[in-house]
Amino acid sequence: MFRKRRPRIGARPGTLSIPRQAPEPKIHMITYDHQQLHDTPVEDVAELERAFDTSTVAWVDVQGFGDRSLMHQLGDMFHLHPLLLEDLVNVPQRPKAEDYDDQMLLVVRMVSLDDDGEPNSEQVSIVLTEHYVLTFQEKHGDILDPVRKRLRGGKGLIRHQRAPYLAYAIADTIIDGYYPVLEAIGEEIDDLDEVVITQPTPDLLRRLNDMKNRLVMLRRWLWAQREAINTLMRDDSELITDELRVFLRDTYSHCVQTAEVAEMYREMTTGLMNTYMSAVANRTNEVMKVLTIMASIFIPLTFLAGIYGMNFEYMPELHVRWAYPAVWCAMFATAGAMLGYFWRKGWLGGDG
Amino acid sequence: MFRKRRPRIGARPGTLSIPRQAPEPKIHMITYDHQQLHDTPVEDVAELERAFDTSTVAWVDVQGFGDRSLMHQLGDMFHLHPLLLEDLVNVPQRPKAEDYDDQMLLVVRMVSLDDDGEPNSEQVSIVLTEHYVLTFQEKHGDILDPVRKRLRGGKGLIRHQRAPYLAYAIADTIIDGYYPVLEAIGEEIDDLDEVVITQPTPDLLRRLNDMKNRLVMLRRWLWAQREAINTLMRDDSELITDELRVFLRDTYSHCVQTAEVAEMYREMTTGLMNTYMSAVANRTNEVMKVLTIMASIFIPLTFLAGIYGMNFEYMPELHVRWAYPAVWCAMFATAGAMLGYFWRKGWLGGDG
Amino acid sequence: MFRKRRPRIGARPGTLSIPRQAPEPKIHMITYDHQQLHDTPVEDVAELERAFDTSTVAWVDVQGFGDRSLMHQLGDMFHLHPLLLEDLVNVPQRPKAEDYDDQMLLVVRMVSLDDDGEPNSEQVSIVLTEHYVLTFQEKHGDILDPVRKRLRGGKGLIRHQRAPYLAYAIADTIIDGYYPVLEAIGEEIDDLDEVVITQPTPDLLRRLNDMKNRLVMLRRWLWAQREAINTLMRDDSELITDELRVFLRDTYSHCVQTAEVAEMYREMTTGLMNTYMSAVANRTNEVMKVLTIMASIFIPLTFLAGIYGMNFEYMPELHVRWAYPAVWCAMFATAGAMLGYFWRKGWLGGDG
Amino acid sequence: MFRKRRPRIGARPGTLSIPRQAPEPKIHMITYDHQQLHDTPVEDVAELERAFDTSTVAWVDVQGFGDRSLMHQLGDMFHLHPLLLEDLVNVPQRPKAEDYDDQMLLVVRMVSLDDDGEPNSEQVSIVLTEHYVLTFQEKHGDILDPVRKRLRGGKGLIRHQRAPYLAYAIADTIIDGYYPVLEAIGEEIDDLDEVVITQPTPDLLRRLNDMKNRLVMLRRWLWAQREAINTLMRDDSELITDELRVFLRDTYSHCVQTAEVAEMYREMTTGLMNTYMSAVANRTNEVMKVLTIMASIFIPLTFLAGIYGMNFEYMPELHVRWAYPAVWCAMFATAGAMLGYFWRKGWLGGDG
Amino acid sequence: MFRKRRPRIGARPGTLSIPRQAPEPKIHMITYDHQQLHDTPVEDVAELERAFDTSTVAWVDVQGFGDRSLMHQLGDMFHLHPLLLEDLVNVPQRPKAEDYDDQMLLVVRMVSLDDDGEPNSEQVSIVLTEHYVLTFQEKHGDILDPVRKRLRGGKGLIRHQRAPYLAYAIADTIIDGYYPVLEAIGEEIDDLDEVVITQPTPDLLRRLNDMKNRLVMLRRWLWAQREAINTLMRDDSELITDELRVFLRDTYSHCVQTAEVAEMYREMTTGLMNTYMSAVANRTNEVMKVLTIMASIFIPLTFLAGIYGMNFEYMPELHVRWAYPAVWCAMFATAGAMLGYFWRKGWLGGDG
Repeated sequence: MFRKRRPRIGARPGTLSIPRQAPEPKIHMITYDHQQLHDTPVEDVAELERAFDTSTVAWVDVQGFGDRSLMHQLGDMFHLHPLLLEDLVNVPQRPKAEDYDDQMLLVVRMVSLDDDGEPNSEQVSIVLTEHYVLTFQEKHGDILDPVRKRLRGGKGLIRHQRAPYLAYAIADTIIDGYYPVLEAIGEEIDDLDEVVITQPTPDLLRRLNDMKNRLVMLRRWLWAQREAINTLMRDDSELITDELRVFLRDTYSHCVQTAEVAEMYREMTTGLMNTYMSAVANRTNEVMKVLTIMASIFIPLTFLAGIYGMNFEYMPELHVRWAYPAVWCAMFATAGAMLGYFWRKGWLGGDG
Repeated sequence: MFRKRRPRIGARPGTLSIPRQAPEPKIHMITYDHQQLHDTPVEDVAELERAFDTSTVAWVDVQGFGDRSLMHQLGDMFHLHPLLLEDLVNVPQRPKAEDYDDQMLLVVRMVSLDDDGEPNSEQVSIVLTEHYVLTFQEKHGDILDPVRKRLRGGKGLIRHQRAPYLAYAIADTIIDGYYPVLEAIGEEIDDLDEVVITQPTPDLLRRLNDMKNRLVMLRRWLWAQREAINTLMRDDSELITDELRVFLRDTYSHCVQTAEVAEMYREMTTGLMNTYMSAVANRTNEVMKVLTIMASIFIPLTFLAGIYGMNFEYMPELHVRWAYPAVWCAMFATAGAMLGYFWRKGWLGGDG
Repeated sequence: MFRKRRPRIGARPGTLSIPRQAPEPKIHMITYDHQQLHDTPVEDVAELERAFDTSTVAWVDVQGFGDRSLMHQLGDMFHLHPLLLEDLVNVPQRPKAEDYDDQMLLVVRMVSLDDDGEPNSEQVSIVLTEHYVLTFQEKHGDILDPVRKRLRGGKGLIRHQRAPYLAYAIADTIIDGYYPVLEAIGEEIDDLDEVVITQPTPDLLRRLNDMKNRLVMLRRWLWAQREAINTLMRDDSELITDELRVFLRDTYSHCVQTAEVAEMYREMTTGLMNTYMSAVANRTNEVMKVLTIMASIFIPLTFLAGIYGMNFEYMPELHVRWAYPAVWCAMFATAGAMLGYFWRKGWLGGDG
Repeated sequence: MFRKRRPRIGARPGTLSIPRQAPEPKIHMITYDHQQLHDTPVEDVAELERAFDTSTVAWVDVQGFGDRSLMHQLGDMFHLHPLLLEDLVNVPQRPKAEDYDDQMLLVVRMVSLDDDGEPNSEQVSIVLTEHYVLTFQEKHGDILDPVRKRLRGGKGLIRHQRAPYLAYAIADTIIDGYYPVLEAIGEEIDDLDEVVITQPTPDLLRRLNDMKNRLVMLRRWLWAQREAINTLMRDDSELITDELRVFLRDTYSHCVQTAEVAEMYREMTTGLMNTYMSAVANRTNEVMKVLTIMASIFIPLTFLAGIYGMNFEYMPELHVRWAYPAVWCAMFATAGAMLGYFWRKGWLGGDG
Repeated sequence: MFRKRRPRIGARPGTLSIPRQAPEPKIHMITYDHQQLHDTPVEDVAELERAFDTSTVAWVDVQGFGDRSLMHQLGDMFHLHPLLLEDLVNVPQRPKAEDYDDQMLLVVRMVSLDDDGEPNSEQVSIVLTEHYVLTFQEKHGDILDPVRKRLRGGKGLIRHQRAPYLAYAIADTIIDGYYPVLEAIGEEIDDLDEVVITQPTPDLLRRLNDMKNRLVMLRRWLWAQREAINTLMRDDSELITDELRVFLRDTYSHCVQTAEVAEMYREMTTGLMNTYMSAVANRTNEVMKVLTIMASIFIPLTFLAGIYGMNFEYMPELHVRWAYPAVWCAMFATAGAMLGYFWRKGWLGGDG
């Protein structure tokens, strides 16, 4: 989760470090204005020329980086700064927004639940210009489909706005993806609330630890994304209009809200850990009480039995007829006294 | 407490996500100036036209969001920005103040104690313009009644001021609602102060944990509200006059004060948790001491009895007349020595 | 310590909430210039007219708020803003400085040790104008006597300065009152330093907890007072001259210093709590060691005695003449071996 | 790791404090422009005159400070401020950037893994002017070789840029060196994740403590370096061009990212410590359970056996034929009851 | 360490509070320019007139405050503001820099190790004007000797600079004094690193606590000094030249560095405390294991011996010839089984 692919130390800035298992790039382009929309997979990079048509908005989506030369081709075609290109490919980057003159880079981290309910994450880099938007995703997948559907549907603002609005819509969709992940963690916390008291095993603590680390991670990403959105909002380039700022403010406040939920869950996880620790201490206490009760009752009795098991020649009690029942009585009395003492201490109830 | 209703991921901004169990909207309108006051439930949205009369102040109060088309109608009538409308309905939002040109949105979170003394919370959104105030409440209920009474009473400043003062009065009433909730928690803390030492059960720790989570929540809301009020105070629109600023400063300082009390209670709860942990450790210690005392006294005695229970042929002591009483003496001496040792250690007192 | 008297929710701003047990107001006025000084209790509010004489400085001191109409009379006479009047009476307020055009409100919290050495606190509100100073104290008492004495003494700067200097002198005296309270806590910490190791009882932990809560409280007040003094210093009204600013800076630095001492004591208290926890753990350890030593020595010996207490017909050892002393020897050897083992482990020393 | 060589207290500013074991300085100079490159070790300081040739960029690299007079010679030749010279030599300095008119000092801390995988660190000071760059390294070694190779290779931007770009390339290479060190720590954390539960020894805790201290150290350096890079970026001297700022921003974001990873690892280490503590508590619990089970089963049985070992004359049971087997039965029943009780408590499973 | 001498509450600002044991003041004056230097103890305050000679720099050093009238004489002669004079004498003050028109006050705290290696501290106040520097030390002693030597030596910058440089040199010398104190603590931490595991006594924890409190103290002083130096640097009076600012920046960075070392040591001390707690828990664990092993082995055997010690008439085993050795065998087998069980659990190794 924290490992970073990176070029060897001291490599030239802009060196791309593509891991072997990176999937083959798949490119997809949508061009639209409020009247029409073209939506095609791209086989040949040359087709991307169309993105430069200033009368429409173009969205070029690249999934997977497994082809170094293609990446360089894209970099050349769209005049991407070498450092910008490096940030797209050398994942993970910290979420951030950076201004490259007439282009803007927004790096965000998308999270989703896989089929087992485990959260996984992927970097999405959004390059934003006046007329087109480039998105670069680490893996194949159709997480941006809702945006495509809205584009195809043609309703709402999205088809009447320029490229920056599209970039916003994409970023907003990605931030929205944090809600279900946080909700799943919230449910897990609810489930564990009972378990930490009834079954406090070290493995459970490890699970809580993992959850806490995940939450720290999520909050960190959200915090960085909050900053990135803020950078966008404060940017004085012409790309960001006042109208768009209102929408970005909305995304900003989603970031803050989800970050606060993540923080709150982290604190609740810490609370569960303390409860766990306390449950272990209580269990030890309970075990000790059983031992103490058993030993305190029977050790004196055994001593008494031991007394009359001695073989002294002159032990007058041994020859008294009612001595044996008397000893039994004494024993019951002793045991009763001990039990009474423990009862008064409240140790015979199960819960203290 | 932390769950958020929200539209599906990637939905168009402004999409309203209304849960099934949301109550039917009830609309109520008050229009007033310093001479007269009209106070009527509203059956037909068209009646709300009156709110636009610039010679009076209008307060439109909507309780419950269970009718999507009505919400859209209201949105259209009052020219609410789609994102503003979304924030009203898609609860919970983080408390905030946002400026939409000639309208201002103030989202606050109202808390109250229900009949069982459990705190519950509800979002109240206040839309503020020069001539009217809209309030949107999540649930039915009459928590803003004190403001209505003051309006009807007609005394004081409220009937002589414009809409922004009304909005302030509403927000101030809601912040006031935090005091009794915090006071109830303060009383619970006082109650638990004794209990954590005398009855440290894991359930108690869970209760403390819950209380801490609630306090963190309250402080977070208050903090966000503090920021929101501050945003209002710093706003340079004509809605906020210097005279109103003095009142907002008062509300601001209530937010700070309640947030500090919440923080202080949170620290006291943490202190109780530590006391709890210590009480458990002390209990284990006490249990151990009983065991140690019992075992240390009787195990040596049993050993002694065991010695003279051996069946060796040549054990001269067995045949000595005063041996049996001598053994008893030795036993008492041993037990006494042990007790003396424990006494010196201070283990026989109950408290250490 | 944290409870707040307040009007019912939603009450009109400026509503005074006076508790039943509030003492009757006692009013006292001093008017002075560098030549003369009048010092009289005030029976009739009308006498306060003299405070408006611009050739002298007037100090009106009100102790106790138990008369609502009198408070309103005072409010009217001195043109106090309703919110200002509310802040005077509805204690406790958070320490703060607020600017009301030609008046300035400084709310501070005075602490003192009562006869039992317990700290208690009281709100003092100072209303400061060019020609007079109003002080409002929650309870009767003569804590501002040192200032009165300085006035009567007539030495020093105080008789040659205007009202703001008097207000400074009062605030400074109140901040000075934190030193002995902190010193008393410091001495208590020194006392407990030893006790936490020798007598770690849960009650002690509760006492530490209380102390910590008190320190948190004190630091919070001092911090708020620091801010309030800072607000005064930064105020650009004509009330605060450059000369006075130098004096306020001194008070400011006293606030910082006492706040830091309070913070340091809080950390020391936390340290004592950790020592306490450790002392409890060590005690358990010690108890366990005694048990382990006793049990480990005598249980094997008892077993040996048990062996030769069996009634088998064919146990050749029983009939050997030196068997009995041999068993004693074996027992001593076993016990010696165990003791040697514990000695090597260092368990026979008393300390850990 | 934290020790600082420093001149004696009160020494003149600029006093060099060179430890005895400091290695002999080795000087190496590279001069280049986009067409040619000279790369030679420097035997005589006079050769360094070439660095002042304004048509090329010169890089003078000094490794080791073990020659005071040479250091002073260098200081004189390059007009280094006495304080600057002191900072170069009196290691360790906190990473920082300082502006000395036409020179800029950038102190960074380089970390690397030695052959045993232990991280060690070294101060590298970079003096940056328009035409030359001086680097001062604490020890011999070729950690800046990647930069030299890039220079010799002659590809990329580096040969076409001025000295500030070279300084950037050096600093960037050094920051890059934190990745493998953090990765090694990350792997160690993964390894320990299992071990803390299965083998919680105090030595392990010490190792975790060491790791945490190292991480705190790394984060601190990175944080200071982040500030230093920021100082460079914000510097308004002519040395830092807008083009260079883009590159510095990249280095800045690497600092932030590595600092966050270090912080995250620190939190994970704290998590491991908690798991460790819990594992110890669980072990004690398990030990106690074995003791309690054994003792609770056999102590009552021994008592029963003791009863019938008593020597009373009148014990009717002793003479009943089926009494002995009956006692065995009673014993099995008792033991079974106890086992059943423990089973119900869940103490017979191994885990908790 | 934290006690503050202070005038009684409400005393006139500027009241000097001199404790009885304060040493007699010793005054010493050095006047110099780059050509000559006069260095004499001062018997009569009138001699100090020479300090006002604007052609030389004068340094008046006062050690000990035990003479109130002398302090007032000095105050009058050098036109010290009453509050400034109060700050000099009423130690301890928080380190700070304050601007009094043509004078500047710099309060710093000097630390040093006494002969037992215990750190002690003393306030040094530096009053800085254009032509002279006054220093006020709490106790006699020659800690500023290095500066005097540098003055007498006459080398370096110091004799060519004005009074502010002298003040800098004094402050820098005092900050330098923190290094050996921190180093001594660092060595103590190294020593304790081993001891906390092998000998975890409560006294050790107390020692760690003391160390932590000392470190918190040191960091606080350094932090305040950092602020004070910063205040000086940012001061726009003519006293602070650009050239001097470079030197102050150096002192500033020393403050930051030492404060960070103090913070790091504090964290390491906290780490040691955790290790200590863990070591205690491990010891308890070890004690428990010994008990459990001994008891689990011998209690069943004793039971077995008890069985055949019963006196039933009909116990066929008693009369079987090989029964006795058979019982021994059974006992060995049982003991072996238990040992095997503990071996598998890993409890027979010594390490947890």
